Order: sequence, then structure tokens, then C-alpha cells
Amino acid sequence: MLTLTPLSGLPLIQPGDDLSALILQSLISNHQSLQTGDILVLAQKIVSKAEGRRVYLSEVVPTPRAQSLATQIEKDPRLVELILQESREVLRTRPGLIIVEHRLGFVCANAGIDHSNVEPSSSKDFNRSDEWVLLLPENPDASAERLRAKLEVETGTRIGIMIIDSHGRAWRSGTVGVAIGFSGLPGLVDLRGQPDLTGRILQVTQVGAADELAAAASLVMGQAAEGTPVVRVRGFPYALREGSLQELIRPKEMDLFR
Amino acid sequence: MLTLTPLSGLPLIQPGDDLSALILQSLISNHQSLQTGDILVLAQKIVSKAEGRRVYLSEVVPTPRAQSLATQIEKDPRLVELILQESREVLRTRPGLIIVEHRLGFVCANAGIDHSNVEPSSSKDFNRSDEWVLLLPENPDASAERLRAKLEVETGTRIGIMIIDSHGRAWRSGTVGVAIGFSGLPGLVDLRGQPDLTGRILQVTQVGAADELAAAASLVMGQAAEGTPVVRVRGFPYALREGSLQELIRPKEMDLFR
Repeated sequence: MLTLTPLSGLPLIQPGDDLSALILQSLISNHQSLQTGDILVLAQKIVSKAEGRRVYLSEVVPTPRAQSLATQIEKDPRLVELILQESREVLRTRPGLIIVEHRLGFVCANAGIDHSNVEPSSSKDFNRSDEWVLLLPENPDASAERLRAKLEVETGTRIGIMIIDSHGRAWRSGTVGVAIGFSGLPGLVDLRGQPDLTGRILQVTQVGAADELAAAASLVMGQAAEGTPVVRVRGFPYALREGSLQELIRPKEMDLFR
Repeated sequence: MLTLTPLSGLPLIQPGDDLSALILQSLISNHQSLQTGDILVLAQKIVSKAEGRRVYLSEVVPTPRAQSLATQIEKDPRLVELILQESREVLRTRPGLIIVEHRLGFVCANAGIDHSNVEPSSSKDFNRSDEWVLLLPENPDASAERLRAKLEVETGTRIGIMIIDSHGRAWRSGTVGVAIGFSGLPGLVDLRGQPDLTGRILQVTQVGAADELAAAASLVMGQAAEGTPVVRVRGFPYALREGSLQELIRPKEMDLFR
């Protein structure tokens, strides 16, 4: 049985906040425990906020390249500048949308930067001049690793930590939760060569286990719910091990749709 | 809280089997109930088997087009013939792999047909001449609808039914569970225009809720597990409504990666 429990009551995260301490408090106030084998899934947003990844658009100076692309796709040139800075390569564009290979290796829209769900510094004084956006964490695998180390020491457990975002997809409508970094769990689970119940050998099957879990956790978090950006997973069916986002990045030369 | 419970002990499914009766028996033997709001997720394989979608390769006569493609990509021409019959369009090929738009509208590898996990008619007498494959259900939305109607009458509940398969993806390694048909639940959940907790209006966000659930259920089923092809989901966070796979199909002209 797989159980996903959202942790409610987490405060709005501020730069410099200690997520491990806030999560431990949240577990207590939710009357929930953490035990070996559990995985905590975090929304990217709270990790970015805690790490101070906020950028004020008024402080961004777009390059000519960003200006030109911004005009072409009708998007704020300062935002386009940030998207380009956070990306290795632009794959496709259309009005309002830039699909990139993010510097972290995955393909996503607008380098994972958008305005939605980002509150102004002060909601009463909100105006265009203090408009800001959140970049993705500098290194989500490392963020997960640090958080895991703290929580494992505090709780005496062996757990996994995953950071997720919502991505659009080729071919199918709707965003789904995907892993953007993790520690202590497998990205891919390789079932190649294992006999199935009838004794025949399975053909190539590598399961994107971390992404399946990310989608599950995303379902529980919802989208508008700044209040439940942490989900505790109990009953993950595969053995925990060291793992990295790189497992989930399809090499460019192996991708028929790049 | 979202809970996914695999139903164990389902027998190997044969053509003509009544899945609703077998699932009800399985619920009882697992000491599990079905209540309004629950969703049952079924692996495609058992639906295809019950519906007699097995095709003996010895009875398939490849067209010249299938023969030619089979030579090019080093695949059994009879299997290629079936893949072409089940598809609207071939998008990409490489050795051993044909990416198609399936007649059901989604993009997938080899039209969802493969040998893995398909046992011979009799494991003792297995030989090449009775090798067979399973096609996807004729109309998975309708299969889900029929099963739902029976189970709702039998149990006096209002539930959802989803049929899933494992698909590879552009850009990311590893297969993930995706919906190939469903009844009684939303495919997409439209959060556009809803204010978030800070009072700002969310930008475009349509969540692929059915696919997030498919991924979650796939995680619980595993891959080699013919024994747990049914998962009961309790706590799905969105309201149940009528729904269809078509919600999840990105229109070709809206797809930057076709």
C-alpha cells in the first residue's frame, strides 16, 4: 500500500528559512512521524524561496538577444533574459512560451520560471516595480541531499527526499509533477532481464520510478495549495538507494523528439 | 491523504472473463471495500486479455509496407503489420522501435503492442508457432464505462475506473504509467483563473490529473507484477465527473514536438 500524506500548516517560506526544522515542526503538528523508508516530496517553490532564488524584474537588464526574442514571442524581455540565463538551449518558441533545455539538463517551459503563485513582497504595496519571480534551486539534487542529511540525523531514520515541479509534456495535455532533484531514492528502476510471473524474460523496461512518485505527490499537493508543499510518502515499492536526477535525463542523441 | 492499495490474488485473466466479478471477489479476499469517490485503476493487459485482444503472429500476413519497414528497423514484419494496423501515423522509427500516433489518439511506442509479460497459451508447449501478442483494448473509455456501470450497480457506489499503460516519453528516460481510457473522473483539471493563497490569479494551469493518478497507480502495480494489475485509489483530491481520454490528447497542431 502506498500512502501520500500532505503536511499542512507550513508557514510561507522566507529566504534563509531552515526547511528541515519547519518540516519537523509540521510533522509534529500533523501528528505524523518519519520512519526509515519514507520519502518526503517538496514543491520546488519552497526550496527556491528558502534558498533566496527570488529575482526582482526591475533589476534585470535584458541582452539584445533576449529583447529580440521577447518581441517575437510577446513576453517580458526581463523574464526572457532570465529564462535564457537559466538554459543551455532554446528548443522551440511560440507566443508566451519558450521550451528550453534547462541548465539542469531537463526540457521544460520557460526554464521553470513563472509568475504564478508568487506573492508580492508585501501584498498591500504591490506594484509593478517590486514584481519578482523565482528561479529553480541552484542544484536541486544537492538541496535534497542537504535536507536529507539533516532530517536523517534529527530523526535517526534512512529516508529519501525529492523536489518536484509541474511540467507540460509533448503529445499529451496537462501538466504533471516531475522530479527536478532528489537524494536517497532511485530515479530509474531497471527491470530488464527479470523474469515475469510466467517465467518469460521482460524486454527493455526501465521504469521512471521517481517521476511516477513525483506525479503522485503532485496530485496530493494540488496546484494552488501553497499550504501543502510537502508530502510524506510511505510504502514506496522499490528499495531506496543513492540516486540522481541525471538518471532521468534522456541523452540528447537518444531523443527522437529534440 | 491519498491511499493506493493493490488488489492481490486476481487470477490470470482469460478471454471472456468478467472483470467486474473478479474484482469484486478480489476486494473481498483482500478485505477491502469500495466506496463512493474511490477509483479503480486497471492495467491495460488484463482488460485486453478479457476482451480477447490476443492475436497469433502466425495468422498475420504483413503488407509490403510492413515488410519494408520491418527490414529497415529489424523487427518481426508480422508485429510491424499489427503496429501499422493499430496506428494513424508513424512519427519516428529506429531499430526495434516505431513511435506512432495510435488510432486511439495518443503517441506511443509500437502501438502499445509488445511481447513482454505475455505468456504462451500453454507454458509447457510453448513454441514460435503459437506466439501471440496483445493489442490494446478496442475502446478503453468504453471498457472503463462498462466496468464502472457494473461495479456501481453491484456496490451501490459512485466510482471512477481508469485503464493505464506504461509509456516512454520525450526528453526523459524511463516509462511512466499513463491513462489510456477512463470513466467517471476528470482527465484534466482546469485551475486557470483560480486565485492562489496569496490572492493572485494563477496563469494557465491545466493539470493532467488522470495521468498523475496513472503514474501513481503504476508505481504500485510494478511492472513484472501480473499479480497486482488492479489498484484501488482512495482520496483522489478532485471531484469525480464524467471524463474521457480525449481531454489528455494534445491536438496535433498545438504540439511543438510532432
